[in-house]
Amino acid sequence: MSHFMAEFLGTMLLILLGGGVCANCTLNKSKGQSSGWIVITAGWAFAVGLPAFIFGGISGAHFNPALTIALAVIGKFPVAEVPVYIAAQMLGAIVGAALVWLAYLPHWAETPDKGAKLGIFCTGPAIRSYGSNVLTEVIATFALVFIILGIGTVKAADGISTGVVTALIWGLGLSLGGPTGYALNPARDLGPRIAHAILPISGKGDSDWSYSWVPVIGPIIGAVLAALIFVAVF
Amino acid sequence: MSHFMAEFLGTMLLILLGGGVCANCTLNKSKGQSSGWIVITAGWAFAVGLPAFIFGGISGAHFNPALTIALAVIGKFPVAEVPVYIAAQMLGAIVGAALVWLAYLPHWAETPDKGAKLGIFCTGPAIRSYGSNVLTEVIATFALVFIILGIGTVKAADGISTGVVTALIWGLGLSLGGPTGYALNPARDLGPRIAHAILPISGKGDSDWSYSWVPVIGPIIGAVLAALIFVAVF
Amino acid sequence: MSHFMAEFLGTMLLILLGGGVCANCTLNKSKGQSSGWIVITAGWAFAVGLPAFIFGGISGAHFNPALTIALAVIGKFPVAEVPVYIAAQMLGAIVGAALVWLAYLPHWAETPDKGAKLGIFCTGPAIRSYGSNVLTEVIATFALVFIILGIGTVKAADGISTGVVTALIWGLGLSLGGPTGYALNPARDLGPRIAHAILPISGKGDSDWSYSWVPVIGPIIGAVLAALIFVAVF
Amino acid sequence: MSHFMAEFLGTMLLILLGGGVCANCTLNKSKGQSSGWIVITAGWAFAVGLPAFIFGGISGAHFNPALTIALAVIGKFPVAEVPVYIAAQMLGAIVGAALVWLAYLPHWAETPDKGAKLGIFCTGPAIRSYGSNVLTEVIATFALVFIILGIGTVKAADGISTGVVTALIWGLGLSLGGPTGYALNPARDLGPRIAHAILPISGKGDSDWSYSWVPVIGPIIGAVLAALIFVAVF
Repeated sequence: MSHFMAEFLGTMLLILLGGGVCANCTLNKSKGQSSGWIVITAGWAFAVGLPAFIFGGISGAHFNPALTIALAVIGKFPVAEVPVYIAAQMLGAIVGAALVWLAYLPHWAETPDKGAKLGIFCTGPAIRSYGSNVLTEVIATFALVFIILGIGTVKAADGISTGVVTALIWGLGLSLGGPTGYALNPARDLGPRIAHAILPISGKGDSDWSYSWVPVIGPIIGAVLAALIFVAVF
Repeated sequence: MSHFMAEFLGTMLLILLGGGVCANCTLNKSKGQSSGWIVITAGWAFAVGLPAFIFGGISGAHFNPALTIALAVIGKFPVAEVPVYIAAQMLGAIVGAALVWLAYLPHWAETPDKGAKLGIFCTGPAIRSYGSNVLTEVIATFALVFIILGIGTVKAADGISTGVVTALIWGLGLSLGGPTGYALNPARDLGPRIAHAILPISGKGDSDWSYSWVPVIGPIIGAVLAALIFVAVF
Repeated sequence: MSHFMAEFLGTMLLILLGGGVCANCTLNKSKGQSSGWIVITAGWAFAVGLPAFIFGGISGAHFNPALTIALAVIGKFPVAEVPVYIAAQMLGAIVGAALVWLAYLPHWAETPDKGAKLGIFCTGPAIRSYGSNVLTEVIATFALVFIILGIGTVKAADGISTGVVTALIWGLGLSLGGPTGYALNPARDLGPRIAHAILPISGKGDSDWSYSWVPVIGPIIGAVLAALIFVAVF
Repeated sequence: MSHFMAEFLGTMLLILLGGGVCANCTLNKSKGQSSGWIVITAGWAFAVGLPAFIFGGISGAHFNPALTIALAVIGKFPVAEVPVYIAAQMLGAIVGAALVWLAYLPHWAETPDKGAKLGIFCTGPAIRSYGSNVLTEVIATFALVFIILGIGTVKAADGISTGVVTALIWGLGLSLGGPTGYALNPARDLGPRIAHAILPISGKGDSDWSYSWVPVIGPIIGAVLAALIFVAVF
């Protein structure tokens, strides 16, 4: 399997499961409606951890342009492959979001809240304040990338490290997801936002493009910062 | 131990624990009543993961006719054994459901809601729409079987892979269980539905046979599709 | 360390953590009050899994007279050691319960509900019906012991099996804890019940001795049955 | 990387994630507000387990002056390094708390409750009773250190032990966190309390210095007691 295919399929599964848990918690009549933050964060943790387990050995399981860029900046990933990886991640995220739409097909018409429907696809701030929102994404993605790089330094039995990555995503959501919904990943946010704009979702509203740059810029800054500091201190 | 016995006992334990968590969350006066989606999904995850750990090395721990059929379609399982596996799975599911009935014996009479009692045995749609309901089961079982096959390609320390399968079941429930209650498995749904029809459950209603084909056909389509695409891309 | 000391300390920690989570969820003003079934069951899972990890290699980490008796019945444990193990388990359970009382010392006087206070020490039925209550404990302890014996047959990397036991306790609580509070273990119930009778707990009621035989007899029957059937089928 | 740097960075990440989950559950408009004890305790478990995985092989991943002192008392850690470790832990805790403040920056002004804001930084008793509060911290930290030392005696595949430590922190919070909020660690409490006093947090109240000695003295007594008894019995 090519790196492109692995990043595409992995990000597709990530968004199918990650967007899925948001749909389950949010859409009217869904069996998991209003089941709370532990469900949201556990859902995203497995959404990342399961494809990471499968595709880690093939493409490195980035599924995240910010991680890909940060690794390239510190020379741990070939710069020439960056565009291909990002393309695969964006495409996977769009297809994954479309699958969420299909899996929950009859529920969109039953849910009048346009903002809730958008929130299944992409993140939005609890309190809109662009500077602070960027800062939150910088800090959370810093922790993501610094800890991922740290995990890579530890000798562990085969398969354990992916479990630690799952715990990492779970922990970041629990601890730092409150202000912005922890995008941490430009593809995770922008891909489904594009899907939201394109798909004929019943009773959808606008795609909040005014916020869309925050979960792109914040994670890239945080990831690059983490990679540079990691190289300096380890 | 024979393959038949392993599939029978494994599916029996799966349904004892899986049906059990539904009973605990649903039946009146039960100590876990209304404890929510995290309890339901964690309960099903361990319900699959525990017998998978024990019987994986004996029968492969299918516990699911859709998985058995899909593996046979791609030549990873002998076609001649398919009927025996399915018979063991169905029988195990029926016996497991009967044990749930016995474990919660005094609670059935205390619960007037006939639909709630049926929901402990088999799945039902949040919004009845057969085409969409089949589609949800196809997508969710596609993810189940594709990821199971993916897990099988990864070198991991002994015992780790079953933990990943447990995470997979938990994740699928969290993310894709909202519209149909994630049957993912014809035996998991049809076996207990037969038990519901046969057992002298206090104050039971009908067994909703009009829906019963959905969690049989949907998972089989999704599983076969996943197996074929897996073979094509990996 | 002697077998006796390992069983004593292990059961003491088990009840300190297991009784502790019940106290946290039940006592007035406690920070975890009313935090629900996922907290109760996770608390008991770690309460068993943590000492099992430490003491498994020393005493086998039974912490449960029903398991000790069942292993002796099928010749997997020396009959002569049974009384010493049970004495250590009972003593550990009593001391563990006393530590729970001390850890939550100011909260007992703030909690008027006598039944709630008893429920921190020992189990009680959701619906009092001795025959059914015994049956529930038989089925749940059958699953406990059958799966523990099954786990013992599987080759896993060092330390994995205890994680599976932790998942087992979590799963049994989620799925089969609803009708009787899943004693599964005579020492876990009788030891703290004795502590409840002895300790000067502020505003305590009676210790419900009329029910006390159920979580002793039920688990022993279930455990012995599981061991005998396990030997027959594996 | 030096021991100092590892203890500093590890404790910083610990408090960023641990304080973060308290902020998420407490601050107004945060997406995880009021999501309950399972979220709090899972958040702290990953907050400890993730840096423990990364820094365990470098500094031993104490992150806790009580553990450092207890190990020194029983001769398992050089006394001369104690001050450096404690300085790193305190500094890391203060910086971590400052990062929590920044990550949740717009939420402080939206939350009028001064006590809730303080509770994100440091612990406070459910029922103020200094003797009992010390006793709770002694018992809980005894369990922490005794079990950590016990985990160290068990042969496990690489990476497993840190998972058990994560389970330990989760379990202690679930079971013994009710009366005092389980400080278990002088740096975890005093460091962020100092940060609370220093930082220009919108609408903050006093830092409750009258309680501040309890989560310092209690954990040290419990940790030293556990280490001494561990040496005596193992």
